[in-house]
Amino acid sequence: MAKKTGSTDGARRRIKERDDRTGKKILELAQGVVKKSYAGKDPVIDIPTRAKSNTIWNKKIGILQMGDAFAQRELFNLNQARQFMQTLLHSNSVRELIDADKTLSLRGMFYKGLHTVAGTKEKTFSDQTESDGILEDLEVALGSLREELHIFAKKAGTMVGNITIVDNGAGTADEIDCRRMGSGGYAIPSIVEPDTIQFKKVDAKFVLHVEKNTVWSRFNEDRFWEKHNCILTEGGGQPPRGVRRLLKRLNEEHGLPIYCLLDCDPWGHYIYSVIKQGSISLAFESERLAVPEAKFIGIRSKDYKACELSDDVKITLNDNDTKRANEIAAYPWFENHKGWQREIEGLLSNGFKMEVESLITKDISYVTEEYVPQRLKAKDWLD
Amino acid sequence: MAKKTGSTDGARRRIKERDDRTGKKILELAQGVVKKSYAGKDPVIDIPTRAKSNTIWNKKIGILQMGDAFAQRELFNLNQARQFMQTLLHSNSVRELIDADKTLSLRGMFYKGLHTVAGTKEKTFSDQTESDGILEDLEVALGSLREELHIFAKKAGTMVGNITIVDNGAGTADEIDCRRMGSGGYAIPSIVEPDTIQFKKVDAKFVLHVEKNTVWSRFNEDRFWEKHNCILTEGGGQPPRGVRRLLKRLNEEHGLPIYCLLDCDPWGHYIYSVIKQGSISLAFESERLAVPEAKFIGIRSKDYKACELSDDVKITLNDNDTKRANEIAAYPWFENHKGWQREIEGLLSNGFKMEVESLITKDISYVTEEYVPQRLKAKDWLD
Repeated sequence: MAKKTGSTDGARRRIKERDDRTGKKILELAQGVVKKSYAGKDPVIDIPTRAKSNTIWNKKIGILQMGDAFAQRELFNLNQARQFMQTLLHSNSVRELIDADKTLSLRGMFYKGLHTVAGTKEKTFSDQTESDGILEDLEVALGSLREELHIFAKKAGTMVGNITIVDNGAGTADEIDCRRMGSGGYAIPSIVEPDTIQFKKVDAKFVLHVEKNTVWSRFNEDRFWEKHNCILTEGGGQPPRGVRRLLKRLNEEHGLPIYCLLDCDPWGHYIYSVIKQGSISLAFESERLAVPEAKFIGIRSKDYKACELSDDVKITLNDNDTKRANEIAAYPWFENHKGWQREIEGLLSNGFKMEVESLITKDISYVTEEYVPQRLKAKDWLD
Repeated sequence: MAKKTGSTDGARRRIKERDDRTGKKILELAQGVVKKSYAGKDPVIDIPTRAKSNTIWNKKIGILQMGDAFAQRELFNLNQARQFMQTLLHSNSVRELIDADKTLSLRGMFYKGLHTVAGTKEKTFSDQTESDGILEDLEVALGSLREELHIFAKKAGTMVGNITIVDNGAGTADEIDCRRMGSGGYAIPSIVEPDTIQFKKVDAKFVLHVEKNTVWSRFNEDRFWEKHNCILTEGGGQPPRGVRRLLKRLNEEHGLPIYCLLDCDPWGHYIYSVIKQGSISLAFESERLAVPEAKFIGIRSKDYKACELSDDVKITLNDNDTKRANEIAAYPWFENHKGWQREIEGLLSNGFKMEVESLITKDISYVTEEYVPQRLKAKDWLD
């Protein structure tokens, strides 16, 4: 077990409380199976359905949510026995992780559960995809975040800005001043739950989230976060759960507006949609990941004219872009949103995409010194 | 221009000296063209040849180097005029970056140089690939690292461990204690030249470099760097230049051995080869990027038996793997290396690959508590 020197007692206690809760849920899951068996009934686990058919657009709070449909997973059913066994196998691994006070990657969980069933040539998992799916089942069945199950994913994303955090995730309470992180920045971990990451000194008034780390570097080098008193994040394209959860917590716990600077193309719109409303595949996590208040500050289809850009920055839409743009326009949360309908129509009638970097044709720091400050001042964004 | 508060005078002076050197080289390049023109001769630029044919394996120092072949790029040559113009265009952009004390991404440089040539429909660059190639030409023509030209790439990779660095890359001299970076770590920037990144307090005795950030998280969580007094880095797969340069500097300036923990497959062997000897495409940078002393600590083909792994961890080699393995075995630096010939033969005769994560089938922390410590103690590695 990792040495826990220097960790604050409060943080340790919170982690223990969380682990106790999760451990109890796993025990209840297992006990349910045992009880049914003793009662002479078929062992069964209820797994909420993770599918589009069971995804509901909650207009009132503005997020995608999972409905209450679920399926039973039976041991004595040829089609379900494999998944039944896999679910219990992973439950047991999670229990071990909690007991050992360790975390494991998705790939690690696949290997941890991997063996050949005694007396057969059958492997417990044929590949990681199968293992990942069972872990998502387990999340919804237990009502516990993957992070609470001590499982992490590949991390991506960096942060700088007017905030100090305390990161307990590596065994000591490390105080990290994001005002002094140089050109590199603080690498956002995969697990950012309140018991491992605490916000200590939040001076920032908002968060600027950009799509790419190269754009982030431009903003950091121009010390945008200092001049505008904010936090600067990037998520390496489509932000991973750790980054989304961090944005959510900053918005919820400190009331910070989240402004997203993304490309003017269907991919940029999709990233925004996921940050704001959640995704179908993770609908069961929307309440903890989605930021309904997130704002899209650009790039906008009007910017070609508004910023007097040259024809050189145009990247012609291909058939797939057009298809995706139409799909996104039909998302329930965009469907009745006049601003977004206009925006996507603008993209389609332009016939071209534009990247954030296209503003460099104006000036190296046009984006940090003029574009974003002007849009913020004019409150010119889509939400 | 970015405000440079708190930056040490020494660091600022070094940056200025470097920039003056680079600026002078660009001026000389331009003056060469002007002189030829005034003398009534055809303007021409000499560009060293970046190709396999001009790549030499320097056995004595153990790195790939660029030979002394070069090609002339002429203005009055239909095949070369476009590239001639592009080279001068980018030279001018670099000059502007130096004057403005700013850096730009590769994508940013493409946009900065992008315009339609007056009176024609010809764009200066058809795509970023064309722009990137010209920037590499410029590096070799000037004998300046891309980083010295104020150009950065997408960054990847993180670091923790017994080292304090000073990062001047965002305008202030930020002291970063990599012993207190929590679970996230310090995100390694793209530009890590001595004038922007200084090593301040290096207690570590070696560097452990791992392939994937999920494996890195396991080592960080187990506080391997603290127990074994080292630095822990990862490069997100094939490490980008920033990470390679950092490893090189730690090896060269502080004599730290670099141990690489990579997968037992041709991709892992290739990553090792690039870290150690350099790559053909960046042969002109090998002296500043390659670490001939780097050691491959695993995973080894013998580990299936040595670590008593189960059949479950085997990932069958496909045709492409076999082809790649044979290609790598024929690299001049592996060709006469008995250890590496045996290793690759072992991989081929096994008929399967193994990932670092496969050790999780033994125990979650087998890799951090047994595998690596034992190999280090027994000096059991390939070099």
